[in-house]
Amino acid sequence: MSDIIKPSILPGFMELLPEDQIVFNQLKSIIEETFKKYCFLPIDTPVIEKGEILFAKGGGETQKQIYKIDKGEKNMALRFDLTVPLARYVAMHSNEINFPFRRYHIGKVYRGERNQKGRFREFYQCDIDIIGNETLSLYNDAEIPAVIYEIFQRINFSDVTIHMSNRKLINGIIESIGIDNSEDALRAIDKLAKIGRENVVEELASINIDGDQAEKLLNIISFEGSNEETFKHIKSMTVTNDNFREGLAELELVYDYMKKFGIPDTNIKIDLKITRGLDYYTGTVYETFLNGYESIGSVCSGGRYENLASNFTTKRLPGIGLSIGLTRLYYQLNEIEAFKNFCDDVPKTSLILPMSGYEDQGIELINELRKEGVVAHIYLEPGKIKKKFSFADNLKFRYVVIIGEDEVAEGNFTLKDMMTGEQQKISKKDLTQLLK
Amino acid sequence: MSDIIKPSILPGFMELLPEDQIVFNQLKSIIEETFKKYCFLPIDTPVIEKGEILFAKGGGETQKQIYKIDKGEKNMALRFDLTVPLARYVAMHSNEINFPFRRYHIGKVYRGERNQKGRFREFYQCDIDIIGNETLSLYNDAEIPAVIYEIFQRINFSDVTIHMSNRKLINGIIESIGIDNSEDALRAIDKLAKIGRENVVEELASINIDGDQAEKLLNIISFEGSNEETFKHIKSMTVTNDNFREGLAELELVYDYMKKFGIPDTNIKIDLKITRGLDYYTGTVYETFLNGYESIGSVCSGGRYENLASNFTTKRLPGIGLSIGLTRLYYQLNEIEAFKNFCDDVPKTSLILPMSGYEDQGIELINELRKEGVVAHIYLEPGKIKKKFSFADNLKFRYVVIIGEDEVAEGNFTLKDMMTGEQQKISKKDLTQLLK
Repeated sequence: MSDIIKPSILPGFMELLPEDQIVFNQLKSIIEETFKKYCFLPIDTPVIEKGEILFAKGGGETQKQIYKIDKGEKNMALRFDLTVPLARYVAMHSNEINFPFRRYHIGKVYRGERNQKGRFREFYQCDIDIIGNETLSLYNDAEIPAVIYEIFQRINFSDVTIHMSNRKLINGIIESIGIDNSEDALRAIDKLAKIGRENVVEELASINIDGDQAEKLLNIISFEGSNEETFKHIKSMTVTNDNFREGLAELELVYDYMKKFGIPDTNIKIDLKITRGLDYYTGTVYETFLNGYESIGSVCSGGRYENLASNFTTKRLPGIGLSIGLTRLYYQLNEIEAFKNFCDDVPKTSLILPMSGYEDQGIELINELRKEGVVAHIYLEPGKIKKKFSFADNLKFRYVVIIGEDEVAEGNFTLKDMMTGEQQKISKKDLTQLLK
Repeated sequence: MSDIIKPSILPGFMELLPEDQIVFNQLKSIIEETFKKYCFLPIDTPVIEKGEILFAKGGGETQKQIYKIDKGEKNMALRFDLTVPLARYVAMHSNEINFPFRRYHIGKVYRGERNQKGRFREFYQCDIDIIGNETLSLYNDAEIPAVIYEIFQRINFSDVTIHMSNRKLINGIIESIGIDNSEDALRAIDKLAKIGRENVVEELASINIDGDQAEKLLNIISFEGSNEETFKHIKSMTVTNDNFREGLAELELVYDYMKKFGIPDTNIKIDLKITRGLDYYTGTVYETFLNGYESIGSVCSGGRYENLASNFTTKRLPGIGLSIGLTRLYYQLNEIEAFKNFCDDVPKTSLILPMSGYEDQGIELINELRKEGVVAHIYLEPGKIKKKFSFADNLKFRYVVIIGEDEVAEGNFTLKDMMTGEQQKISKKDLTQLLK
């Protein structure tokens, strides 16, 4: 009994009080409802995967962050994203699922990152992907951001900008400048917003891209203007390679259809600086920023990959996906106090409060209310009335219903509106009507 | 590219195809909605806890099954239930939460159990608990099973029996027979249903409980009759110790109020064989069985504990809780084909199917439908009409809406009801009305 262990959690893990958890869950639920509205199907894969699956790609920063399981001689680890499990799932069940396969997945992933404010080692990802069998039309690249746009609309934060580019196009531009190691160049320019132009030039120099080439490349991708002007700027280049031509055609089509899918032009930005550092993207790439809070970084990113599951199957499975880092998004929206208008934190619920000796009448009432689907709580602990009302206050019940001697004699209830402080006698019928 | 890794998951982990996942999620959602209706508040704790928290209790079968994390020198492991994290949470946040604290928690837990059919190493638990500060009234012991009863009603499986007993009562009986090691005796009789009377007698003998005592005990607890008869049977015993008297009074009160909370007497069974092997229960104990499928075992168990968090705080925190093993419940209900009436697996959703060249009109239509909140899918992949219809068939869309040359000329749509095979021309207004 004397050996009390101080209760605590590991650093880098998020844990909320119930009132905040309710807001978090509302955000999660809006995301899920929107995914379902667009006919994405749910999957839920094990958090623990075989090591050979998670390490299939080899190398990489993320893989160093993997949490391994220490149990017997088994080779097990916690997933670090939902994309590798998707690749494994689609390859494993390819004969049982229908292509194009639209799936959503909301689940926790694990990364042993360096500890820093606003970064979490356990976090929810909310992913949508559409996987084709051999081919997948470009319309999908346009529809997926429409889902994201609707989510931000629903949480009253439609002031977002979806930045978009195309990997083939940028590769074509890099090629035209005479740079061969386009992967490394992409990784360097992906850091532009974070580390600034000078440092990118330095990094490009370190991979043998000379100053002239670097300047030329950075001038092209840093172009600022309306989407129309950006397309004019791109088309004014005298580049003729296949990558450039294909990439430009894809970007134009996807941009065009994003607008047709209902995303306003003001919420889209053709932005050649967006490359997505990860090397598996091969076409469309997106990043989403909250206007006025660009320093937070992208809250939703993704893109097109030509072959999802090459480690697990010989089938060619092209796909397009977008991912919201929910835990981080919640943290960020909370920091900028964006939930004030989003969620009504006074639940419309009521507390039934029988006086001592009138518990049975209280239970009778709550049974009837619950039969009508009313969300209600009955307080049956002994104690002073003051204590009971402070419970109602603390838990922010909207209404308190009192049952005691008078009420039973008169055959009614006393209803207190905790927001206005008003108190009135009310019949059971009217009460049920009010709370329903 | 030639190094294909066979895609597979670890044994003992459940993974479903999307059509089954939808049913699973519906079950989960009904449970969550019912928890919320009874004003339980959500919490979501990290899956990884500090080792010192999970191993605080020491010893025990479950603790041998813990998955430890192998990362640096940190002492981390995966939670094996939601009760230890609750104890840690309540102790850690005791100044920020309101008592009695009603929380629900739905999350995955991990146990490295021996591999066997229908048992899972990763599974969802759905827990509700009410935690008092110093005291907690017995009314809570009666209300909690009402939540469970409502859940089974909602999934069209109200044919359940909540078996109930009281630990104090059974301890009083054991004491009256002259047995001292009541913990061990409880653990033995808990196995009665599983291993049979003879084996229990043998196990009791092995802990120095002689044949007479064992027979006496087993005769008492094996009594079969209506609840009224069982209470008569208990009261006919000439036992006078405190445990017996208190336990009986508690059991009667909880039983009485369970009925007042709306659980029919036919769904309650006072059953002295129910002891719950876990040693932390101190009063009310429950197990829930599906009538006709008792061999499956309890689908929802729990009880009263006098002090939840003694490892983490000097505060006395009594509580009452119930837990549904969701993954196992889903598996079992699926095995007995209980979902047939529960869930309509034909979604009421529709597929918009534009002919080649009419994609834009299809997108225009789906935008308008989605604005009205309609759940719909647009198929924009190239290919033969037959392939498109087989996609609609496979994904069980209820309606297919065709847009082509004729439809655009006539200003309407062709609607095919996939259930009846009927096809008709329909105006946009009527279509929206139908699908809303």
